[in-house]
Amino acid sequence: MKEQASVAVLIIGNEILSGKTQDANLQFLGEAFARLGIRLAEARVIPDEPEVIATAVNDCRKRYTYVFTTGGIGPTHDDITADSVARGFGVDLVLSEDAARRIGRGSRDINPARLKMAMIPGGASLIDNPVSHAPGFRMENVYVLAGIPSIARAMFGAIEHELDGGDPIQSESIDIYAREGDFAATLEEVAARHGDVEIGSYPFSREGRFGASIVVRGTDTAHVKLVLNEIQAALGRGD
Amino acid sequence: MKEQASVAVLIIGNEILSGKTQDANLQFLGEAFARLGIRLAEARVIPDEPEVIATAVNDCRKRYTYVFTTGGIGPTHDDITADSVARGFGVDLVLSEDAARRIGRGSRDINPARLKMAMIPGGASLIDNPVSHAPGFRMENVYVLAGIPSIARAMFGAIEHELDGGDPIQSESIDIYAREGDFAATLEEVAARHGDVEIGSYPFSREGRFGASIVVRGTDTAHVKLVLNEIQAALGRGD
Repeated sequence: MKEQASVAVLIIGNEILSGKTQDANLQFLGEAFARLGIRLAEARVIPDEPEVIATAVNDCRKRYTYVFTTGGIGPTHDDITADSVARGFGVDLVLSEDAARRIGRGSRDINPARLKMAMIPGGASLIDNPVSHAPGFRMENVYVLAGIPSIARAMFGAIEHELDGGDPIQSESIDIYAREGDFAATLEEVAARHGDVEIGSYPFSREGRFGASIVVRGTDTAHVKLVLNEIQAALGRGD
Repeated sequence: MKEQASVAVLIIGNEILSGKTQDANLQFLGEAFARLGIRLAEARVIPDEPEVIATAVNDCRKRYTYVFTTGGIGPTHDDITADSVARGFGVDLVLSEDAARRIGRGSRDINPARLKMAMIPGGASLIDNPVSHAPGFRMENVYVLAGIPSIARAMFGAIEHELDGGDPIQSESIDIYAREGDFAATLEEVAARHGDVEIGSYPFSREGRFGASIVVRGTDTAHVKLVLNEIQAALGRGD
C-alpha cells in the first residue's frame, strides 16, 4: 500500500484573522479531500504579509504532498499571494498572455490593476476559473485558488482530477443526547478494539441540551458501519 | 509606545479538518482580540495528535505574547489537549482537586472519565467555566479553552481582564457594488497616502452581483473614519 497523500490548506487574509469575515472554504476543502482520500494534515489562517506567506508555503510544500492556498489573488493592492508564492519559490512573476486573454474575456476594460492578475510565478500553470475568468495557478505542488467561495469551488473542480488520492475516507455518525462523561469509558473500549478506524466524539450544546456526535471514519465502508452499530448497541441510544 | 501584543489561535480537532464541523470560534476570537488591541498573528487548525499539538504550542508560545487553544479538553479518549500541552512544556499532568470539585458540581456522577478533565499540566491554573463547570486552564502564556462555542466564549470572558492589550483596533467598512479591477488603482492611491491605517478590499459575490467590502482598520477612530470618507468620495458610491 502506498503512503497516503497529505495536504495543507493556507487561508490567506487579514479579514479572517480580524473576525470581519467567516472563512467559508475550509469545510468544503476538508470534505473534498476526505472524498479523494487525501489527508488534510493542517490548515493555517495567515495575514496578508509577503514573508509570512512565503515561509508558510515553503514550510508546507516540503512537508506535504499538496498545498492549497485561498485568497489574495485579486487586482487590489492587498492581493499579494502570487508575489509571495514567487518569492517562496525564488522565481520572478511573469506575465501570462493566456491569463491576460482570459481576464479580457471577463471584463470590458483591461487596465493595469486587472493585468496584475495575469502575473504568475515563472513556471506556474493556470487553473481555470469558469465563474469570473481570472485564473488561479499551480506552481509544482502548490495550488493557488481565489478566496471567494463560489470561485474557489469552481477552481477546485477544475483541477481535482489531477490529484493523486487514495481510498476515499468514509464517515458515519450518530448524535447521542448524553454527557460525554457518561459514555466515555464505553466508547474508549470500542475504540481500543478497532484501531483501524478513527472514532471521534464531538460535544455540542443544542437548545440547552448537551450531547455529542460520535463519528467513525475509515476507508472500509462496511467496517465503518459495523463499528458505528457496535457503538450504538453499547450506548443503547442515538438518533 | 510599547510593542503591540500578539496572539496565535490553535484550533484542535479532526472534526474541523474533515469538514464534518465548521469552526465557530475563530471569528469570535478575532473580533475579541481586535477589540483588546492584540494582534491575531495566525490561526492553525491541527489534528488530534499529541506530537503535532505539542510542537504547535511550543512554536507559538515562544513566538507570540499569547497562545489560545480550543477543543480537546473533554472526557473522551480523543480529548488529548491537556496531555499534549503538558508534553510541550515538559511537565507531568497532575490532578487538580479544585477542578475535581468543580466537575463534581456539574454532574451527578464523578467517574474516571470525568476525573480525566481534572488532570492539568503541573503549574497550570484553572479557567472558570460558568456554563458546564469543567474548567479550562492556563499554563504560562498558553490559554486552553473548550471547543464548544458557548463554553469557549464564557471561558474567554473569565480571563479577558488578564490580557495586556493595547489601543483597540477600530474598523469601518463600506460595500461597493463594482468589480475590484475598476477601482483598484484609486484605492491604491488612497492607501499610499495613509500608511498608518490598513485598507483591505474583500471581494464577494451576492445574488450574482460582484462587489467588495472595503475595510479600514487602525487605532485612531477619527482617522479611520476620515480615510473611509476619502475612499467613498474617490469611488463615488457605496452603501
